Amino acid sequence: MTAACPLPYSENERVLLGHGAGGRLTAELLESLVLPALGDGRGAPLEDAALLPGGGGLVMSTDGFVVSPLFFPGGDIGSLAVHGTVNDLAMRGAEPVALSVALLLEEGLELSELEAVLRSLGKAAQEAGVPVITGDTKVVGRGAADKVFITTTGVGRRLPGLSVSAAAARPGDAVLLSGPIGLHGTAVLSTREGLGFEADIASDTRPLHRLVAALAGLGADVHTLRDPTRGGLAAALNEIAHDSGVAVEIDEGAVPVPGPVAAACDLLGLDPLHVANEGCLVAFVSPRAADEALRAMRSLPEGSGAVRIGDVAPAGGRPGRVVMRTVVGARRVVDMPVGEQLPRIC
Amino acid sequence: MTAACPLPYSENERVLLGHGAGGRLTAELLESLVLPALGDGRGAPLEDAALLPGGGGLVMSTDGFVVSPLFFPGGDIGSLAVHGTVNDLAMRGAEPVALSVALLLEEGLELSELEAVLRSLGKAAQEAGVPVITGDTKVVGRGAADKVFITTTGVGRRLPGLSVSAAAARPGDAVLLSGPIGLHGTAVLSTREGLGFEADIASDTRPLHRLVAALAGLGADVHTLRDPTRGGLAAALNEIAHDSGVAVEIDEGAVPVPGPVAAACDLLGLDPLHVANEGCLVAFVSPRAADEALRAMRSLPEGSGAVRIGDVAPAGGRPGRVVMRTVVGARRVVDMPVGEQLPRIC
Repeated sequence: MTAACPLPYSENERVLLGHGAGGRLTAELLESLVLPALGDGRGAPLEDAALLPGGGGLVMSTDGFVVSPLFFPGGDIGSLAVHGTVNDLAMRGAEPVALSVALLLEEGLELSELEAVLRSLGKAAQEAGVPVITGDTKVVGRGAADKVFITTTGVGRRLPGLSVSAAAARPGDAVLLSGPIGLHGTAVLSTREGLGFEADIASDTRPLHRLVAALAGLGADVHTLRDPTRGGLAAALNEIAHDSGVAVEIDEGAVPVPGPVAAACDLLGLDPLHVANEGCLVAFVSPRAADEALRAMRSLPEGSGAVRIGDVAPAGGRPGRVVMRTVVGARRVVDMPVGEQLPRIC
Repeated sequence: MTAACPLPYSENERVLLGHGAGGRLTAELLESLVLPALGDGRGAPLEDAALLPGGGGLVMSTDGFVVSPLFFPGGDIGSLAVHGTVNDLAMRGAEPVALSVALLLEEGLELSELEAVLRSLGKAAQEAGVPVITGDTKVVGRGAADKVFITTTGVGRRLPGLSVSAAAARPGDAVLLSGPIGLHGTAVLSTREGLGFEADIASDTRPLHRLVAALAGLGADVHTLRDPTRGGLAAALNEIAHDSGVAVEIDEGAVPVPGPVAAACDLLGLDPLHVANEGCLVAFVSPRAADEALRAMRSLPEGSGAVRIGDVAPAGGRPGRVVMRTVVGARRVVDMPVGEQLPRIC
């Protein structure tokens, strides 16, 4: 079939695990292949959720979940499939209205395991206050999938007063983080590989829309929201710096990395800034609103650990770059993660 | 993990290929496991698309596509992923507003093959007049998926005047079919198995929303629309008979089965009524509107072969049953397909 459709990619180029890791390879695949093939020439920033045309403030987001193992400390693929999509909507300033769930099952999966996943999914949706209104189930033969994959799509309604975008960060903005980083990725990896950290580390997977609602009171002072999932805090900050054309500076000493996460990352040679999170967000807000934003976040359990981790450099900084001021006073560039560090993490 | 969550399913019960085939096993899985686990006790009929709460006439539908092979006569997984979801929206009387696309890729997939799929997807979306507004890409290791799976979710707006439901068929309704059956399933199967019919049979995959728009002029005389995909015409009619509590009678001689489809089904021991379609619909309309509905459908290329295949029995027939009057004058019950006939057909 490919012989009949000459294409710019050679037959030697193939999909790599890193193409799905949320780092530079993912961005390259999107920009060089996916978006052109789909006829998207807009060059618009890639947001976590997109506005529905003529939809009266409704946004839509979709996310595939392939985490392995299915169950890990703090969550499972079912709860993750709800939280991930609710959070993508929330990062566009939207509260969830409805979810759809598409199941892709491998022949031979135990029905009891499927039921445990779906019960968790249903419970997470109920706790987030969003109904699952439609779905689909497909089954493929043994070896053509790995147990269960879930694709969750959400429709949300933008909160009045909030108008956030990855392209809206401004010079001087305060950079806030709602809680500690590195928990989800290290919990899943430790469980999968039997590393023993899973006794001390649990995934932070949780819905973040109430945290966003708490920030909505600050209105136009909130410029950008993003949850640092695949690719971690490093990818989220780099994307915002790129899309907004600003330089971001963070303080190493201000970024909360729990002790067991630091220990696990040391052992595994991982940078905690690159590890996926599923229950925290970064907010770029006007400097005058920073304290009030921190108070608003800390008023909720999911934001009790909120801190200011840095700033957007004043106008004139090098656009698109993220720099970390280390605890010893040096400055190092925080790069976009290149490829795959932790496959099947969400 | 299952040991910690005692559940009513024994560990011996497992997912079967038939659970994804759209027949009786699929319905059982949904009713006994999926819907209860998700906390859905509404007992509402399962429609192809669901109304968004407070969404002002917006509907949502999701569908996973796992067809194998990726390319087949008449289409490929990319075009199918657009048509399938556009058609699910159309069966609720809605025109498509936006699509999301979630890609699940196997490590090692040729980028040229991925690009061909996405170009076809983009072209199909453009031809259907619906934008792809957001997406997601995940990659799993070799052997954890089969090349590419696509989940497409659509949001649509209900056409004014149309109020269709699988539960709205009435005694006396005319049962109309927009075109010949059996093409998609036999085209895919013949290609996959190298049976040689693929020279004479092409999938009917196409968008049906313009056909539905043509029927919208008939307003409340149109009661039920459904596209007979997985499980074929037999499953579609049984679902409508069940959800509407009516008895359906069709005439064998009136159901258009192309010669090559009949030959392929004969050889393979398949019932054409059970074979998946991706480009035709059944419409239940008031008898007085039947001729006008046929004219409206025949005014479009995708409805040029529209025919009346039967009726809903007058009140008093056995609810939930579908009967076929054979060409030799006998009557036989058209059962819901039990399990898997054609795996990975869409």
